[in-house]
Amino acid sequence: MKITALAGGIGGARFLRGLREHLQGRGDDWAGAEITVIGNTADDITLFGLRVCPDLDTVMYTLGGGIHEEQGWGRSDETFGVSAELAAYEVPPDWFTLGDRDIATHIVRTQMLRAGWSLTDVTAALCDRWQPGVRLLPMSDDPVETHVVVAGDDASREAVHFQEWWVREQARRPALEFVFLGAAEAKPTAAVLDAIHGADVVLLPPSNPVVSIGAILQVVGVGDALRAATAPIVGVSPIIGGRPVRGMADACLSAIGVETAAAAVAGHYGARIAGGLLDGWLVANQDASTAGPPGVVQRSHPLLMTTRGEAAGLAGAALDLALELRH
Amino acid sequence: MKITALAGGIGGARFLRGLREHLQGRGDDWAGAEITVIGNTADDITLFGLRVCPDLDTVMYTLGGGIHEEQGWGRSDETFGVSAELAAYEVPPDWFTLGDRDIATHIVRTQMLRAGWSLTDVTAALCDRWQPGVRLLPMSDDPVETHVVVAGDDASREAVHFQEWWVREQARRPALEFVFLGAAEAKPTAAVLDAIHGADVVLLPPSNPVVSIGAILQVVGVGDALRAATAPIVGVSPIIGGRPVRGMADACLSAIGVETAAAAVAGHYGARIAGGLLDGWLVANQDASTAGPPGVVQRSHPLLMTTRGEAAGLAGAALDLALELRH
Repeated sequence: MKITALAGGIGGARFLRGLREHLQGRGDDWAGAEITVIGNTADDITLFGLRVCPDLDTVMYTLGGGIHEEQGWGRSDETFGVSAELAAYEVPPDWFTLGDRDIATHIVRTQMLRAGWSLTDVTAALCDRWQPGVRLLPMSDDPVETHVVVAGDDASREAVHFQEWWVREQARRPALEFVFLGAAEAKPTAAVLDAIHGADVVLLPPSNPVVSIGAILQVVGVGDALRAATAPIVGVSPIIGGRPVRGMADACLSAIGVETAAAAVAGHYGARIAGGLLDGWLVANQDASTAGPPGVVQRSHPLLMTTRGEAAGLAGAALDLALELRH
Repeated sequence: MKITALAGGIGGARFLRGLREHLQGRGDDWAGAEITVIGNTADDITLFGLRVCPDLDTVMYTLGGGIHEEQGWGRSDETFGVSAELAAYEVPPDWFTLGDRDIATHIVRTQMLRAGWSLTDVTAALCDRWQPGVRLLPMSDDPVETHVVVAGDDASREAVHFQEWWVREQARRPALEFVFLGAAEAKPTAAVLDAIHGADVVLLPPSNPVVSIGAILQVVGVGDALRAATAPIVGVSPIIGGRPVRGMADACLSAIGVETAAAAVAGHYGARIAGGLLDGWLVANQDASTAGPPGVVQRSHPLLMTTRGEAAGLAGAALDLALELRH
């Protein structure tokens, strides 16, 4: 049995770890299901000459046991010797601090990319160490970079790299638009398309629908492949009662004119029967009274993933809804 | 007044720090003398995709106050988070451990070199932070790489990078030959040639005469410039009583057929009046009874630089000999 999931960073990673742990406890055919994760790479950034892939690493570290649990990203037991020195050299940027352990990952990745490896193969090599228990695929081996258009001085518009807006500015300036540079030319890898075509179930974890899942969908061919997939597609709402479960998804949703509400996000993804993506949609209990788009089967379940057990329960509920929709 | 010195790593760096401190205490015109250091770059190596310049960094850290004093190379208060992770990824080599603070230097250098800066300009930028009190120049902006020819299995000969022989093998396999790859095509920079032509005094610190000073002399034009310099050239013996002051210079000297003795090293450099480099030669007191090459004025002085005061005294003695030879 094959499960394919799209994923961004923290929320996606915790959901996927929950899914893996849920599958380990199952008593049916799905106990040994293979999980393939299609990771967002549009947040990637080159800092200090090192290629940093925040979402892929968050998934890899979370499922591989190396994550800083409380923080949700970065390495556990981290030190910051390199960053302190880079600051002493006054090398910009000063708003993105990389830990020493994390930097080793970026050094290995950068060295392999420079040697001609694809990001897919580099990611597989890094996962050889971490053994995340899932196959982690970047959405594309081609560069895609999310830029955020904001209002500059004098009524001008300016675009900044997503990380600059997200990390440096904490999304304070309202986003007017997201531009996914390179997305129109980027191709999904054969492994990504195979994972969608060959899936028995497709899950959309509660990752950011605009800049995480949304960025993956910008890669030409991914949306079509999903719409053509034989597997049911079940999404999990990233919104509980009008607020993002975590992060600043509301700042992204407002930029694309979507209300910060579970039903609105489902409407944004759209029902498969109406040319959209969703067959099923999992919302928080307090959002259950508002129906999703026609043709999307909605269920409710607690969405908070504070504990690993809660994450496993949520993933199990999403999988169960998908299995129900297969028959 | 202008002093130009050639330098390798630890010995050269300590001598130069002594020279700077000696000059600060002088009461004559030489108190404010400018020091220009022509550093060996043939030991440089790319590790984990990062450009490492061991000799330049040892000079920069020693004179800039960042050196690990007891060790003589690397940073003080160093940590090894990145290296531990690189080992966990099983990324070779496993025999060259880089500290986190040190790695920041290599990250900055690598990023600037990739952006098109020359090594000369990169080194100047790094020194902006360290303020070593000398102008530190790489011998060339072109790559030169010392390889060591050793006996392989089955009577074959094989060449390994100098660092692999020096650090990994601790010079255990006898060197048959040193090959300075790229030296024939490498050009000294204009700054290097100017520093030699414009010098009032040229000093050769007690650096390794084969792989440090010797590598600098392999750059086409450097030897000719030194021989044509109007400044007196004074060298300091790296040998005391038949043993290297520090390091494994004997393993290098034997490869080129030079005895591990102060007089033999002076003979290897040669007297300027006979087409060599030296006008003056400073040896240890116990080596004073053996004369150097005809035409080289020899003086004796304690050569150990265990304390900064000893290093300053030694540098002062070398400078005094040079000043004596100017008149």
